Amino acid sequence: MINETYRTMLGKKSVIRELSELATRMAAEADPRHPLEILDYSLGNPSVPVPPQVNERAVWHLTQGEPAKVHGYSPTLGIPEVKEKLAASLARRFGIPYTAADIFPTSGAAGALAHAFRLVTQPGDEILTFAPYFPEYGPYILPTGCTLTVVPADTKAFQIDFEALEAALNPRVQAVLINTPNNPSGAVYSEETLQTLAALLERREREFGHDIWLISDEPYREIVFDGKTQPYPAAYWPRTLTCYSFSKSLSMPGDRIGYVAVNPECGCSAELVAMCGQISRGIGHNCPTALMQLVAADCCDLTSDLSVYETNMNLLYDCLTGLGLEVVRPGGTFYMMPRAPEADANAFSRKALRHRLVLVPCDTFALPGYFRIAYCTDTEKVKRSLAAFRELMREEYGVQ
Amino acid sequence: MINETYRTMLGKKSVIRELSELATRMAAEADPRHPLEILDYSLGNPSVPVPPQVNERAVWHLTQGEPAKVHGYSPTLGIPEVKEKLAASLARRFGIPYTAADIFPTSGAAGALAHAFRLVTQPGDEILTFAPYFPEYGPYILPTGCTLTVVPADTKAFQIDFEALEAALNPRVQAVLINTPNNPSGAVYSEETLQTLAALLERREREFGHDIWLISDEPYREIVFDGKTQPYPAAYWPRTLTCYSFSKSLSMPGDRIGYVAVNPECGCSAELVAMCGQISRGIGHNCPTALMQLVAADCCDLTSDLSVYETNMNLLYDCLTGLGLEVVRPGGTFYMMPRAPEADANAFSRKALRHRLVLVPCDTFALPGYFRIAYCTDTEKVKRSLAAFRELMREEYGVQ
Repeated sequence: MINETYRTMLGKKSVIRELSELATRMAAEADPRHPLEILDYSLGNPSVPVPPQVNERAVWHLTQGEPAKVHGYSPTLGIPEVKEKLAASLARRFGIPYTAADIFPTSGAAGALAHAFRLVTQPGDEILTFAPYFPEYGPYILPTGCTLTVVPADTKAFQIDFEALEAALNPRVQAVLINTPNNPSGAVYSEETLQTLAALLERREREFGHDIWLISDEPYREIVFDGKTQPYPAAYWPRTLTCYSFSKSLSMPGDRIGYVAVNPECGCSAELVAMCGQISRGIGHNCPTALMQLVAADCCDLTSDLSVYETNMNLLYDCLTGLGLEVVRPGGTFYMMPRAPEADANAFSRKALRHRLVLVPCDTFALPGYFRIAYCTDTEKVKRSLAAFRELMREEYGVQ
Repeated sequence: MINETYRTMLGKKSVIRELSELATRMAAEADPRHPLEILDYSLGNPSVPVPPQVNERAVWHLTQGEPAKVHGYSPTLGIPEVKEKLAASLARRFGIPYTAADIFPTSGAAGALAHAFRLVTQPGDEILTFAPYFPEYGPYILPTGCTLTVVPADTKAFQIDFEALEAALNPRVQAVLINTPNNPSGAVYSEETLQTLAALLERREREFGHDIWLISDEPYREIVFDGKTQPYPAAYWPRTLTCYSFSKSLSMPGDRIGYVAVNPECGCSAELVAMCGQISRGIGHNCPTALMQLVAADCCDLTSDLSVYETNMNLLYDCLTGLGLEVVRPGGTFYMMPRAPEADANAFSRKALRHRLVLVPCDTFALPGYFRIAYCTDTEKVKRSLAAFRELMREEYGVQ
């Protein structure tokens, strides 16, 4: 019989997808003499090109590389020299003595998280994360048999509400999942946040008599504004599984390449990486493509020109705060999450659509009353959208 | 806590891997003045190059293609024109009216099977397969919560022992998993086998009052000998999920590209493909690389020069049968599975190692007393190995 769980999931339409479809329909139905420019801020798809080296290295491997290495099976735990290069880069940048044995290449951050969740939980355990959060975490965790508990947001700064975390951190919790820089808020966890988190985890480990793992989802690690960098979470907690993807730093989400890096200071890193190979068998993962492993290793110290995201952020932040909206200024990513000017962000989002703006209400990110702007789009379009924001606030909310 | 299920799996070493490590050690320990040539028939890694078009098309997409298509997110259900090309090729070759809506691109056959198992079962159901079988099916199925039941082998021809199948086919069975051409036996299911199987499934569906799905794992579909072709299983049974990989036909296992093709005659194909998108979220799959989707679609009607496998098979078959071994002549793949000349194939395998031959005992393929030869190696090496086989049979078993 057809599986009922997955069939039922079909019924639940994604708000983001519905909005995006609605916007497409609006554009299609517009009078062709007056084409309608839809200002679509719904999808988090990187908009800048890959650095030229990505294509150069890919072409090099295809034409000059060793064919058996490019097209043959990758070892289950990843290509050794790829793991070495990734480990060396992380060690140099973040001062943790990673070696190849600590790295498990995966198909993007989704693949990395699928392994990390299964590594340190058993069915029935609890994984904590923080509002607002990437809504895919729900379906990612569902088949592991664990429950995802969401700690209420710190809406002042989108750091961590430690009182709320203390209340939620019970003995069933085996892992705490963080995502910094954060989708959807754009917040960058500070050194202080990570230190306080580590101190709390250490206290609770002693109290509960078991390890608590930190699963750190970091695909936006390299997109940080104002010349700052993201403090590296694993540097604050030995039992950290760092889940990374090159999707955003190299603008190559379609190439599905990332990794789990196990902090060697946890003391069982080789065992955990070997277990990743076992988990892979059961979820049909079986290594990311060999070619993309090789390319990512060659390019892991590069990024695309990510400056456009900061330019866009500043334009939008200044405009929206100028219109009286409450916005926590993002420290990174290509998202921001203002508070909607009315309690129902869905109603606000429908009104925004009348002004050609596609803005996602944050109910599914566990923060009703807020909306997400994904400003991974070109700056000229952002500039054109500012008038639409002003029009929206004026006509719908009387803001002059 | 670290997951116990996966930690325990680490203890179970693969026989294939142990043998391969032993052989490597033998070679390393040999007197360097008399290097030892290990005749390694253990691993099923394609040995012929990709067709030149694979690299040409990959380079074209990287340098001339639309960057957002090559490096951007692929739609969850796969790139539409890729799905169209794959569907058109299957429709033309096998006479089933596949359209894009019936195709779900996956990361190889492992990815395809991970989706297929979850599509048509619920935890607690039973999946049937046939000895001898690819031992990875066990760990592939384990986390679905289903049990894998193995129907005893038809050792005469490695087709299906229908009496044994009739006995095993109980109402808990929701799917029957076949693999033709077969790893490890090299058997190619005949038209008669597939017709008889379909007739039996039809009878049992009526009796049980529920559907029974055929999951057809076909990575060796294009490697068939004597100018024949593999009758297409889905053509015999409407409720067939065809799981394919380009790993063997195009010699690109490291590129992780394949698909699930749902027979549109099942009547719920679009729903099943949409459900694949939901399953993906929970197992971290999230599409194979966009580049490899595009390349596979361009090259899906090509194959590598696969003739070396038939040449190797004939050399080995003639030699081994000449030495009195019982061998079912393979119809395809790059495997054959002779009966060992003593009841304990592990003991035989250890004796073979003394003669530099790495041969895998088939206990883990659910057929004790047999061994597997993976002859995806170059023909000159196969020729050199024939003397070693003769020596093995003469010195260990007195065959002159």
